[in-house]
Amino acid sequence: MTGAVILRDPVHGLISFEGEVEGVVEQLMNTREVQRLRRIRALGHASLAFPGAEHSRFAHAVGSAHVMKRYLDRVRRLASDIPASDRIDDDMARVALAAALLHDVGHGPFSHTFEVVLPEARAHEEWSSSILLDPDTEVHQVLRGLDPRVPELVEGLVHGRSPIPHLARAVSGTFDVDRCDYLLRDSYMTGVRYGLLDLDWLLAALRLYLPPGGKAATLAVDGEKGLTAVEGFFLNRLYMYRQVYLHKAVRAADAVSRALFSRLRHLDPQPGTPPALESLLRGQTVSTGSFLELDDASLHAAIRSWADGSDPILCDLATRLRDRRLFKTMRLRPDVSPEHARARLHQVLRDAGWEPEYAGGVDRVKIDAYLEDEALMVLGSRGTLQRLLDASPVMHGLSQESFVHYRALFPGELRQTVAAALEDLR
Amino acid sequence: MTGAVILRDPVHGLISFEGEVEGVVEQLMNTREVQRLRRIRALGHASLAFPGAEHSRFAHAVGSAHVMKRYLDRVRRLASDIPASDRIDDDMARVALAAALLHDVGHGPFSHTFEVVLPEARAHEEWSSSILLDPDTEVHQVLRGLDPRVPELVEGLVHGRSPIPHLARAVSGTFDVDRCDYLLRDSYMTGVRYGLLDLDWLLAALRLYLPPGGKAATLAVDGEKGLTAVEGFFLNRLYMYRQVYLHKAVRAADAVSRALFSRLRHLDPQPGTPPALESLLRGQTVSTGSFLELDDASLHAAIRSWADGSDPILCDLATRLRDRRLFKTMRLRPDVSPEHARARLHQVLRDAGWEPEYAGGVDRVKIDAYLEDEALMVLGSRGTLQRLLDASPVMHGLSQESFVHYRALFPGELRQTVAAALEDLR
Amino acid sequence: MTGAVILRDPVHGLISFEGEVEGVVEQLMNTREVQRLRRIRALGHASLAFPGAEHSRFAHAVGSAHVMKRYLDRVRRLASDIPASDRIDDDMARVALAAALLHDVGHGPFSHTFEVVLPEARAHEEWSSSILLDPDTEVHQVLRGLDPRVPELVEGLVHGRSPIPHLARAVSGTFDVDRCDYLLRDSYMTGVRYGLLDLDWLLAALRLYLPPGGKAATLAVDGEKGLTAVEGFFLNRLYMYRQVYLHKAVRAADAVSRALFSRLRHLDPQPGTPPALESLLRGQTVSTGSFLELDDASLHAAIRSWADGSDPILCDLATRLRDRRLFKTMRLRPDVSPEHARARLHQVLRDAGWEPEYAGGVDRVKIDAYLEDEALMVLGSRGTLQRLLDASPVMHGLSQESFVHYRALFPGELRQTVAAALEDLR
Amino acid sequence: MTGAVILRDPVHGLISFEGEVEGVVEQLMNTREVQRLRRIRALGHASLAFPGAEHSRFAHAVGSAHVMKRYLDRVRRLASDIPASDRIDDDMARVALAAALLHDVGHGPFSHTFEVVLPEARAHEEWSSSILLDPDTEVHQVLRGLDPRVPELVEGLVHGRSPIPHLARAVSGTFDVDRCDYLLRDSYMTGVRYGLLDLDWLLAALRLYLPPGGKAATLAVDGEKGLTAVEGFFLNRLYMYRQVYLHKAVRAADAVSRALFSRLRHLDPQPGTPPALESLLRGQTVSTGSFLELDDASLHAAIRSWADGSDPILCDLATRLRDRRLFKTMRLRPDVSPEHARARLHQVLRDAGWEPEYAGGVDRVKIDAYLEDEALMVLGSRGTLQRLLDASPVMHGLSQESFVHYRALFPGELRQTVAAALEDLR
Repeated sequence: MTGAVILRDPVHGLISFEGEVEGVVEQLMNTREVQRLRRIRALGHASLAFPGAEHSRFAHAVGSAHVMKRYLDRVRRLASDIPASDRIDDDMARVALAAALLHDVGHGPFSHTFEVVLPEARAHEEWSSSILLDPDTEVHQVLRGLDPRVPELVEGLVHGRSPIPHLARAVSGTFDVDRCDYLLRDSYMTGVRYGLLDLDWLLAALRLYLPPGGKAATLAVDGEKGLTAVEGFFLNRLYMYRQVYLHKAVRAADAVSRALFSRLRHLDPQPGTPPALESLLRGQTVSTGSFLELDDASLHAAIRSWADGSDPILCDLATRLRDRRLFKTMRLRPDVSPEHARARLHQVLRDAGWEPEYAGGVDRVKIDAYLEDEALMVLGSRGTLQRLLDASPVMHGLSQESFVHYRALFPGELRQTVAAALEDLR
Repeated sequence: MTGAVILRDPVHGLISFEGEVEGVVEQLMNTREVQRLRRIRALGHASLAFPGAEHSRFAHAVGSAHVMKRYLDRVRRLASDIPASDRIDDDMARVALAAALLHDVGHGPFSHTFEVVLPEARAHEEWSSSILLDPDTEVHQVLRGLDPRVPELVEGLVHGRSPIPHLARAVSGTFDVDRCDYLLRDSYMTGVRYGLLDLDWLLAALRLYLPPGGKAATLAVDGEKGLTAVEGFFLNRLYMYRQVYLHKAVRAADAVSRALFSRLRHLDPQPGTPPALESLLRGQTVSTGSFLELDDASLHAAIRSWADGSDPILCDLATRLRDRRLFKTMRLRPDVSPEHARARLHQVLRDAGWEPEYAGGVDRVKIDAYLEDEALMVLGSRGTLQRLLDASPVMHGLSQESFVHYRALFPGELRQTVAAALEDLR
Repeated sequence: MTGAVILRDPVHGLISFEGEVEGVVEQLMNTREVQRLRRIRALGHASLAFPGAEHSRFAHAVGSAHVMKRYLDRVRRLASDIPASDRIDDDMARVALAAALLHDVGHGPFSHTFEVVLPEARAHEEWSSSILLDPDTEVHQVLRGLDPRVPELVEGLVHGRSPIPHLARAVSGTFDVDRCDYLLRDSYMTGVRYGLLDLDWLLAALRLYLPPGGKAATLAVDGEKGLTAVEGFFLNRLYMYRQVYLHKAVRAADAVSRALFSRLRHLDPQPGTPPALESLLRGQTVSTGSFLELDDASLHAAIRSWADGSDPILCDLATRLRDRRLFKTMRLRPDVSPEHARARLHQVLRDAGWEPEYAGGVDRVKIDAYLEDEALMVLGSRGTLQRLLDASPVMHGLSQESFVHYRALFPGELRQTVAAALEDLR
Repeated sequence: MTGAVILRDPVHGLISFEGEVEGVVEQLMNTREVQRLRRIRALGHASLAFPGAEHSRFAHAVGSAHVMKRYLDRVRRLASDIPASDRIDDDMARVALAAALLHDVGHGPFSHTFEVVLPEARAHEEWSSSILLDPDTEVHQVLRGLDPRVPELVEGLVHGRSPIPHLARAVSGTFDVDRCDYLLRDSYMTGVRYGLLDLDWLLAALRLYLPPGGKAATLAVDGEKGLTAVEGFFLNRLYMYRQVYLHKAVRAADAVSRALFSRLRHLDPQPGTPPALESLLRGQTVSTGSFLELDDASLHAAIRSWADGSDPILCDLATRLRDRRLFKTMRLRPDVSPEHARARLHQVLRDAGWEPEYAGGVDRVKIDAYLEDEALMVLGSRGTLQRLLDASPVMHGLSQESFVHYRALFPGELRQTVAAALEDLR
């Protein structure tokens, strides 16, 4: 019982890591790089629309490790169905738990927002790799302390590479532990539709299917018991996109951020800009240690400085972010071409004396309820495999629809002007 | 229906402010000073022990306004029981909603932590007054826009002064809307014992009692229907103190912060210290505008700077906070005098080469389940009034006990040394 | 506050009926006919598949009255949007609450099961009318005590007739208070997907839309705020059918019951059969008072008697119901014609020595996620009305699919025989 | 995976019994004697006060087996702390699961009510023994099919006898699986204070403590992690007694039942009385098979017959039960002696023309929050054992109080008469 971590969690209830194997989670939780995740909100700007959604990457990382623990329990129960090479021994269990905890350790400030507004910079996945492999990080040192090969194994697994295919998919696939935790956590914290994703039932419905003559088991879902749970997962994902991730205030805040970073690039270095961010803006190389200095707090502090700066455009954008004076939005008709809408909007903005690049834009996103290449298989009661779209009319029906979010974004001051000028596009 | 705000909230479900009277809430939510509360965590260091507890003052402020809305609904239902002077008209309802939203607008970084570690500075209540009354704040301008007397009325109500006594208690009393929201929210977010405080039932059990010959109604609780709800409230409060607010990691983090601020005061101004904080540390006057620059983000940024600073003690303390290397704790026997324990601990610390002022201390807190001067009255089925302690054996039993949290705090490196040296005090 | 009823309810939390208008609910709850509903399970045989689903018609009736109370609150908030003739005064509010509580007062034993197995008997709606209008019932006497016209008004409203069209739909339409309560309650009690139907949000999204030049307002849903809530309602309904109402064990128990009643009709009157049931089986007229003697308890007692009776077929069927030895089920391919499947199954049953009429059958049910004639309208942000299928891609996608449950039913003893004989139909 | 039972449960979420050992649960669930529990409500008359509380003994039995499964998991995790003789092998696990499922198989109609009103009859525990040991029951046959000694082992364990002391306490002790399920289930279904009993945390806090030199481990609770969970358990128990089990309507319904059975005994056998009940009333021996004919349905059917009978007192009492016309209650002052109160009440009843034996009475019940002989031990962080009352100020405070429910019961028609006549006793 030594070294047991027991935590209360609003989403999962009780989270515990007990015993020698699970002990790796506590060791990693105590590293500086994982503690940094406490200062990065998981949902970026979504708390501007959902005040409850203020949870950090840290809570999500711990939750992901908990889901992995439950996955490992499930695989143990299914052990008799699969070849020995698909079972997970203690060493591999440590790697799996570490990968679940660390999969997002490379996130920058405001989570995905940061990548969205700095599209040409390295993705968080690459930073995760750097942090795992850099001998100077505490995370690396803990992993290496287990075995010199562990950092590479964890890094590989984070990116979906593993000698055990079903484990690779459990870290980086449709139903991975990351997504299971964040869909649950984001639903719960935003107050939106909790209850759709039923983790207990989803785990109980998981099967490891060994195709005739196959060497490795593949994840499948029991069609008798689990179709509802699987549909619930995809419905939850669809609704989180529609209601939260693509909420108009979230997209508007992202657009303000993008304009702000664009402006910064056009200006000389501004007081208050963190050095690592300055380098990223200029396309210069940034060391792992320097990157790790960036978190929500450092960005908020910079925003405050920029709001007091001398460039009026930068000042306007920073103030918008600080005080939640976001761009306003107006829905556009699906048949209007984005190029046309953008041209018209830019003209309105220019006529009103704004530089279009820093004053909004046209935002069109299309999401799908299910993509065929997610390739989820359903195991029938008589041992037959079906594609999800064949087994589930709900998924079939939803997959025929496209969900489009299409809006013009502009400063609130221009609401009436834009509404009048774009009347025929609404 | 114009101007309706509808929000999802993990704690209350749906929060809405509709119509002309409730519109004041939306106006105030959009001010810069209220938006600042998004950058201050409600529970300060508690998320170090409860990873879910990362909610901000903003979410709590909105929740408090929601509870006030429900209180006003309840008073309306009870209108026939009370004199006209105790009823709440539209103007007073606006004041009440504003006071509920703004009661904590003066909080500094890390909420209460900030006051705990800067005990001689102004309390957040005073800052709230300044913000409400300062003609330069947006909050003041919104309130004055309603009526020139409104800022003073709201400021008074925030401090428990009102021509309507029951309303004063609803903003600043045992069962006030602030406490109802934070007990619920903190329970929910920490994952601790939600369900004890039953707001629906508590409101349904509220009575406004007009004593024979009295002029103003006083809050009371229906003894037949509501005793359980009242006990649940106090049990919830007791448990939140025992499990969360006085959790050893929270107290240890507070102690580290206190040591850090103490060190800052002994040193010359350090790079990265926000100007307003520097003035507060030196006991100098700080303007409202300058105070409002302080939030969690600015403090986190400062901690990062101090961690890179040249003073080894400051550096150690800042690193502890940043990376959650808190002091460790050891329980002390209740009969040991704190002076004695402190002397013994300091000796150990000095012998080990630490400056005791910056390396821990002795922490003793005593809490009560109920204080007689909370003066809660229970209304019997036959119109008689009883003191809560006479009406409720649960509260009577708990009020006889004292709940003491008594610990030594010290750097983790010295765990064995301290354990051995203070063996006879455990 | 006199006469307030305050109840705890697992589904709605706190249910209260306070004041003079709502007092009608308590009066009606105390009648013999409403108390009888305590002895009729709302979900009939579903508790055979979902052990938690043992709630009675009584709990559901009280819950429906609670939803009506909330609907009346909502209409009051919308009063300024609608003509005076659409508002609901105190007298009409009493009628509405009574109709909500009493809408199902005519249910027989095992709720819908009873009608399913006695298809030619009067439907429960007709029995509700009889009970409301029969001067000998306590329900009638309470209603007449309010005003002599009230029994007819309530009876009309129960069947969707009212001078206020939106109220008629709220009692008998797609979103009626009956369905809102039972979908929530059945979800909660079965443990299936609670959280899809969000009553708070659905009510907040309700609008009363007065078409240009129209005289009466019609129910609509705010497309901006409410589309998600509406989709949640239909998803919940779809899932309850798929998972609960059409669960294979529920259908199998219905089939056993049907066979049992069919057998009773072929036999002379059997000991233990309640007189009212005997008359119903023989197609004879039954008085209201006699019908009210039937409830789950009287049917369970009869089943016990029949299980001890002399006819082996009746005895077999009664024992199956009593001890949950239901027919087994086997899924059939959608393209197989039911006539063919039935002929093949009957041959197997006959070959094995069973009388097909009493030994199972072929069960094929098709459900739709949404029927166009539900005619739900969605109110756009600019005052335009859309059909639900045009406004919601989720509903459009689901409406394209058909959900078919198609099974053979047979005694468990024949499982292997049937599986082999019908191999080509699976 | 063959033979897995997966159930949805409103209380525990997902309940599953998988694999060969747990398969015993499914076998037993399918017996006639366990299926009979579907027709007995767990809370007897409590649904008269809490409409949601209509769950059956069957749902509770399955829930208890689920808690036992979780207990066995916990013991497995603690295996290294205890001697081999305290570990639970597969055979013993089967016995434990069976005992949990079957512990209450001997309950009569309306659960405890039946024993309360027939105090001199055999207790349900004795009937459980008979059912387990009677070679004619299906339960016995399933158990004997495992091993001829199993029926006796299960019967012993149900009564708290086992070679493994900690297992005996887990079936029949303060924290036994029965109580854990029913406190949770009853809280949930009544809508009262769910959340106090935290089963996850309670299990995580369980320790098996082997005293120095001892041979068998004893249940204890981790004082560091588990004190709150233990207090929550006892608080939940206390509140369920105060709010539910001793609710005035429940006690009034019990009193009506008691009077009814008393009347039946004074009369000649009445039409409609089930034979087994007739024998029990006359103090005659009843066979197991005959006893098993009794359930809620048979009692409801009998009540209906008695309500139509010729004896006016019996008819009055049966009608009261059927239509919920319970006795009314009036609180009495704690210092009034029950004998005195009873004498005074009986005089009032007689004066009003009622036979006191059949018209109410005086009801006084005293409950304790904790009894010292529950002997719960708390394990300190340094391996020391403390009594619960020494470790927990909450339990100490509550244990000093006595909770007394003291009421007069009488027909509602006499409310004013009784109130006036007993004015000085209130």
